[in-house]
Amino acid sequence: MKFLILNGPNLNLLGQRDEATYGSETLSEIENHLRESYSDHDFIFVQSNHEGDLIDAIHSVRSGTIDAIVANWGGFTHSSVAIHDALELVSIPKVEVHISNIHAREEFRERSITGKVMDGIITGFGINSYVLGVQAALQLISKK
Amino acid sequence: MKFLILNGPNLNLLGQRDEATYGSETLSEIENHLRESYSDHDFIFVQSNHEGDLIDAIHSVRSGTIDAIVANWGGFTHSSVAIHDALELVSIPKVEVHISNIHAREEFRERSITGKVMDGIITGFGINSYVLGVQAALQLISKK
Amino acid sequence: MKFLILNGPNLNLLGQRDEATYGSETLSEIENHLRESYSDHDFIFVQSNHEGDLIDAIHSVRSGTIDAIVANWGGFTHSSVAIHDALELVSIPKVEVHISNIHAREEFRERSITGKVMDGIITGFGINSYVLGVQAALQLISKK
Amino acid sequence: MKFLILNGPNLNLLGQRDEATYGSETLSEIENHLRESYSDHDFIFVQSNHEGDLIDAIHSVRSGTIDAIVANWGGFTHSSVAIHDALELVSIPKVEVHISNIHAREEFRERSITGKVMDGIITGFGINSYVLGVQAALQLISKK
Amino acid sequence: MKFLILNGPNLNLLGQRDEATYGSETLSEIENHLRESYSDHDFIFVQSNHEGDLIDAIHSVRSGTIDAIVANWGGFTHSSVAIHDALELVSIPKVEVHISNIHAREEFRERSITGKVMDGIITGFGINSYVLGVQAALQLISKK
Amino acid sequence: MKFLILNGPNLNLLGQRDEATYGSETLSEIENHLRESYSDHDFIFVQSNHEGDLIDAIHSVRSGTIDAIVANWGGFTHSSVAIHDALELVSIPKVEVHISNIHAREEFRERSITGKVMDGIITGFGINSYVLGVQAALQLISKK
Amino acid sequence: MKFLILNGPNLNLLGQRDEATYGSETLSEIENHLRESYSDHDFIFVQSNHEGDLIDAIHSVRSGTIDAIVANWGGFTHSSVAIHDALELVSIPKVEVHISNIHAREEFRERSITGKVMDGIITGFGINSYVLGVQAALQLISKK
Amino acid sequence: MKFLILNGPNLNLLGQRDEATYGSETLSEIENHLRESYSDHDFIFVQSNHEGDLIDAIHSVRSGTIDAIVANWGGFTHSSVAIHDALELVSIPKVEVHISNIHAREEFRERSITGKVMDGIITGFGINSYVLGVQAALQLISKK
Amino acid sequence: MKFLILNGPNLNLLGQRDEATYGSETLSEIENHLRESYSDHDFIFVQSNHEGDLIDAIHSVRSGTIDAIVANWGGFTHSSVAIHDALELVSIPKVEVHISNIHAREEFRERSITGKVMDGIITGFGINSYVLGVQAALQLISKK
Amino acid sequence: MKFLILNGPNLNLLGQRDEATYGSETLSEIENHLRESYSDHDFIFVQSNHEGDLIDAIHSVRSGTIDAIVANWGGFTHSSVAIHDALELVSIPKVEVHISNIHAREEFRERSITGKVMDGIITGFGINSYVLGVQAALQLISKK
Amino acid sequence: MKFLILNGPNLNLLGQRDEATYGSETLSEIENHLRESYSDHDFIFVQSNHEGDLIDAIHSVRSGTIDAIVANWGGFTHSSVAIHDALELVSIPKVEVHISNIHAREEFRERSITGKVMDGIITGFGINSYVLGVQAALQLISKK
Amino acid sequence: MKFLILNGPNLNLLGQRDEATYGSETLSEIENHLRESYSDHDFIFVQSNHEGDLIDAIHSVRSGTIDAIVANWGGFTHSSVAIHDALELVSIPKVEVHISNIHAREEFRERSITGKVMDGIITGFGINSYVLGVQAALQLISKK
Repeated sequence: MKFLILNGPNLNLLGQRDEATYGSETLSEIENHLRESYSDHDFIFVQSNHEGDLIDAIHSVRSGTIDAIVANWGGFTHSSVAIHDALELVSIPKVEVHISNIHAREEFRERSITGKVMDGIITGFGINSYVLGVQAALQLISKK
Repeated sequence: MKFLILNGPNLNLLGQRDEATYGSETLSEIENHLRESYSDHDFIFVQSNHEGDLIDAIHSVRSGTIDAIVANWGGFTHSSVAIHDALELVSIPKVEVHISNIHAREEFRERSITGKVMDGIITGFGINSYVLGVQAALQLISKK
Repeated sequence: MKFLILNGPNLNLLGQRDEATYGSETLSEIENHLRESYSDHDFIFVQSNHEGDLIDAIHSVRSGTIDAIVANWGGFTHSSVAIHDALELVSIPKVEVHISNIHAREEFRERSITGKVMDGIITGFGINSYVLGVQAALQLISKK
Repeated sequence: MKFLILNGPNLNLLGQRDEATYGSETLSEIENHLRESYSDHDFIFVQSNHEGDLIDAIHSVRSGTIDAIVANWGGFTHSSVAIHDALELVSIPKVEVHISNIHAREEFRERSITGKVMDGIITGFGINSYVLGVQAALQLISKK
Repeated sequence: MKFLILNGPNLNLLGQRDEATYGSETLSEIENHLRESYSDHDFIFVQSNHEGDLIDAIHSVRSGTIDAIVANWGGFTHSSVAIHDALELVSIPKVEVHISNIHAREEFRERSITGKVMDGIITGFGINSYVLGVQAALQLISKK
Repeated sequence: MKFLILNGPNLNLLGQRDEATYGSETLSEIENHLRESYSDHDFIFVQSNHEGDLIDAIHSVRSGTIDAIVANWGGFTHSSVAIHDALELVSIPKVEVHISNIHAREEFRERSITGKVMDGIITGFGINSYVLGVQAALQLISKK
Repeated sequence: MKFLILNGPNLNLLGQRDEATYGSETLSEIENHLRESYSDHDFIFVQSNHEGDLIDAIHSVRSGTIDAIVANWGGFTHSSVAIHDALELVSIPKVEVHISNIHAREEFRERSITGKVMDGIITGFGINSYVLGVQAALQLISKK
Repeated sequence: MKFLILNGPNLNLLGQRDEATYGSETLSEIENHLRESYSDHDFIFVQSNHEGDLIDAIHSVRSGTIDAIVANWGGFTHSSVAIHDALELVSIPKVEVHISNIHAREEFRERSITGKVMDGIITGFGINSYVLGVQAALQLISKK
Repeated sequence: MKFLILNGPNLNLLGQRDEATYGSETLSEIENHLRESYSDHDFIFVQSNHEGDLIDAIHSVRSGTIDAIVANWGGFTHSSVAIHDALELVSIPKVEVHISNIHAREEFRERSITGKVMDGIITGFGINSYVLGVQAALQLISKK
Repeated sequence: MKFLILNGPNLNLLGQRDEATYGSETLSEIENHLRESYSDHDFIFVQSNHEGDLIDAIHSVRSGTIDAIVANWGGFTHSSVAIHDALELVSIPKVEVHISNIHAREEFRERSITGKVMDGIITGFGINSYVLGVQAALQLISKK
Repeated sequence: MKFLILNGPNLNLLGQRDEATYGSETLSEIENHLRESYSDHDFIFVQSNHEGDLIDAIHSVRSGTIDAIVANWGGFTHSSVAIHDALELVSIPKVEVHISNIHAREEFRERSITGKVMDGIITGFGINSYVLGVQAALQLISKK
Repeated sequence: MKFLILNGPNLNLLGQRDEATYGSETLSEIENHLRESYSDHDFIFVQSNHEGDLIDAIHSVRSGTIDAIVANWGGFTHSSVAIHDALELVSIPKVEVHISNIHAREEFRERSITGKVMDGIITGFGINSYVLGVQAALQLISKK
């Protein structure tokens, strides 16, 4: 299977952010960790601080070579109608992940606009959220 | 007359989105349709998933060669203060169009931030919203 | 084709209201303008300051002789559940028009209750909103 | 006993509205049904799309010949302070009925302004709401 | 001077409503009281339970024979955008009166939509609100 | 027919509560009254102050021996998502009843969460609400 | 009769404020105007920018020598629970006046906390609001 | 490791609820599935429609024999301050799971009161949410 | 005098919760402390995590042997309409106590639904809130 | 011990306010009552209708001779950020008292801004709230 | 140039408040610091815990000897309509300063009522906010 | 010292926007003005209409060569959680500046999301806001 792992703004600095909230691993360590854990599968890692790049990446899925999206939309989670609309165009499994528990932070992080059109959401398990996200996606693929 | 037709996020996939809501025509079919319908006029078509590109395009109008803007801001309609501010800098006719009727969908689509600084809004007529938008703009130009 | 052009409260005084917002044409000038522009079509003009009269007029459409409604609900746009419910009973094309841009005025004009059950809305183009409204309706009829 | 059965906007088209929500009986079939079910009692049926006519009808009750009101205010239920105030002037039993369950529809139908000054409300039982309404009114009369 | 005294829904029953809130005088007693108190002036009394009739009456002022409006909009005070818009069309002095103090009652009576376009408001002095309203109007006329 | 009559918190003290609001009959008097009025039918009366017991009782309906539910959820009406969800599992007729008119009391009683998934609601007729509720349920059964 | 005319913050500068909104008369001109218009009556004028002074002045009324309060609470109108509570302690007629129409200005001026415990409110008639306020108070005294 | 799997109201009927939303597996099938998938670990399954029972079960964790909680609070998720407070008393890993995606349903399901004091939340993956929940908990245990 | 001391959810774990907020005493230490401090009086201590049990306990007061209720409703304070309604049925003195200051914590703890029908509330004094609560109740009894 | 008993606006008229809500004792009777009940302690009584005076009095505590504050902020309770900020500067025990139960009155009295920075609040026990307040303060002093 | 430096409630205790938020300098140290930094200019320092004194001080500016106001309104910033109205009367440069960043604290400090009628606001730079405030005022004076 | 001066959307057109609100200087004039005023310091000017570019620029600060950020986020100020999160990653002094006073404009400009994680904000002084911003930053650097 081929996974598109989408990462929103500021996730390029993972491992350098407030460690208590986000842990100490970097995004490429997560990437390596996923490749090792799921060595039978392919991963395309995209990180961008540009909302438009993420929308482009979502659109690219329509070419048909991707089996599932696992995405951490970062700060765009709570406000981007444009990403929401892009996701509606995509019918493969879509899993939203968050490193910290969005329900345990500022009130403006409680709502997920993007999550309304994802299959499911995994929030609060550090980088393990990505591992669980891939596993959830695998199961969604198998159910199709 | 020269029209700048601006298209916001996800409109590059028009014709591939939910057909009941958005119809089956693609953006280039709209473009062709406009060129044929209004063969005396010029059209510049811009589509971007990047808010910043759309702002740049609005700014380009200040060079003085464009007579009117017809724009479908997509998901940015409901939240972009930055596009709102860019539009205030432009004094040529500005018409906002939407393929679906924004008042008949989710509550968060009911408000148009960008529309506050457009001359008028045409919403709900499928790709015909663009045709009507150009016609409305022509009349606004003639009134100047 | 036969159009029912419905006009809500205060539109009988069009041309006498604040000119900057509403322009200088009267309702009968709009009527003449439409008859001339679309000489192949019939128009029935109704204006009333009574919500009930407008509901009766909407009901009259069910007799089957009308091909489309073009309506400016005036101040009822933002609050009338009764007109909303009447409109649900009518399946011919329904176009809402406003002379001024309702998104650029007081906050209580931003929401359109009636617009939720219209096919589309054209707002902000002066009396040209009516012309565009008829054109939009024609296209909706042809798509049926 | 003499009942005033008041019917608000659009109820003249009952039986022609969306059948899943409102059933297939017309208002005159309801009238006949009530006259047959309660052949010992008199019924005055009023239907109007005009808020003012309904207020006049409520006022007429003050002449003293009516024993109870059973009313379906339609779209006025949720907004009419004027009907609310008229009802405060009337001390005979007042029963509000709705064909569909107002708590199971759009959020703006959840609140009943008129219901604040009715004795009770019966909502969701199709035309049987009228039958139950008359029965409720009879019992309220007998308790006086 | 010629005054148009407009009275909204339910005011025809004044004197028969809850006496603690509205006093015991009828509307025609108010009319007589005004004619006697201001015997040099003319009064046209209009009462209607129809929003549309009140709008028509406001429009009639444009014929130029009326010097001031004194109006008690009753339950329409708090919601009628249509009356609000009609009042904007009239430039003679406009005084809103209420028999009871709208700030001391239900929360939904606290806001006056119509009052936004009146010169001033007098609320809470029983039928004396009308007397004060005429006096206020006289002074507004003299200032013109 | 067999009816399950569910009674929520505090209804065991009916007849001992504020008589002006709730009347003087006890719950067992209501039970006797129903058994006498509808002697052809069976009634199972359940009263509990425990939300969980009421959910269990709703679930019991799935055994298939009950024809309809008539329920007064008391204070749970306005907040219990759990009862709401349980009711969605049950497809027999479900009628909600209230002794007092919930629209005429504190604002927090105006909304019925449970009522969103009931067939209809009868509110404000004292213990007669139960009688009307059974009658409404009978009619719903006959329509199936 | 003896009137206490209370004036809240900034009213000492009346006549020097924005003339379009507040007119050109000073507070002492108002005082003189009242003394001349009502030469049979006594007036005590108090102006303070201190909420506490105004409360003290309200309390002084309890000595029994004052027949009515006419008060313009200025900016305290919209927020002072303390003045509201002081007013509840006073049973003589209490009339609130405002020079400008509080319903036609910023939204935060629409609500009157103090007005909830005044007999009535007169708003929007310039300094004539004071004259009308005294007249309203006289009539309230006579009704006692 | 020993897991306490807590299940809130209506989950005893899993497999019998709306299949599109909740899938066709029963709670005991989930139990079996977990026992098989994680045969090295112990599972205590608790289901209750009683908020109090769930609180008791949370308290039982304090005896020290449980290594982690995986819980689906059902309808209590969105309102139970009492469960929220109980969870604060427990310092072992706590994972919240939901079968359906709570962000894609009614607005009142968007907020998770209980989730504020859980380590993380997994929502939307059908019964696989439980499997992922146990895996997440295992990882949280190992990090301690 | 005989006091019913009611304790809501999680109070059975008092002394084991976050010590900074709740102190280190257990509920039975509070019980002993009260018995010693007020050795002339009887105390019945009830603690339950079940809303229904607490309602039952409130109802038991109607047997007439209890002189006052002192209650800490815990998490039910902020949401339970059912406990609110039960309390309305009881006319002996009712004192609400809280260990922590509910006004100094999360916003959702600021409102007390139950407190609306208690005589008074004592919040923030640790277990001393109970001692003060009994003393307040004694004084309320003596005033009867 | 030395107590500063602070009393906000209108409390100088205690005993003359609405007796049902506030009782019949005057503030000096409360003062005497406290001096007698706690003859070992000193009391400084301050009452002011001026927010600034109360802030000054709070500041005076910083001289170090006062052991605790017991305060009834009256109408300032619900809005004064300035008193809130002053209280943050003071680290001796601070107890807020109210004669009436603020949770059982108007909605705008439900929130206590000042109470957010007090140790605890006692509300609803008439003048006994002061006695309990002193007792609570004594216990807070002893815990230091 | 002559500056009026206005300081609202609790600023007399600057240097004694929470040091992390407010720094360790006292108000007179700020005064000295300003006099030294801007030895060519005059400074009048006013501090009051009384809203009325601050309004009086604003009014004093109308005597014409002051060139600019630099003010820290403290807790009055967020609620005082009276100070807002006083400031409208003054046309010299007006600069609002705050020691802490009001956007980074409690939500009720985010809004500045007074700031709506100041030229600009400087917030968050400790006592340096005053220095910057004077500098900003100087530049505003020079632009006049 | 080296300053990064970040400028959000539309600031490239400074000097061409509405002069009353934004003044007549261009961004490069501001740049020159800063370089001249602070000739001892280095300035890097970045302007972008792309949210992502601004985030990238903030990230670049982590390379360690920049001493402080002075930023005008334009329309992103009020909504960008992504910029907010980026700023949390940067520990050098951060000063937010605005040319116009955001508290004196539309309500949606009142809140600053980005400002929550800046050291301070300077708003309303035209291009002088930048000069003051650099000065504020210098002082913050010196305090480190």
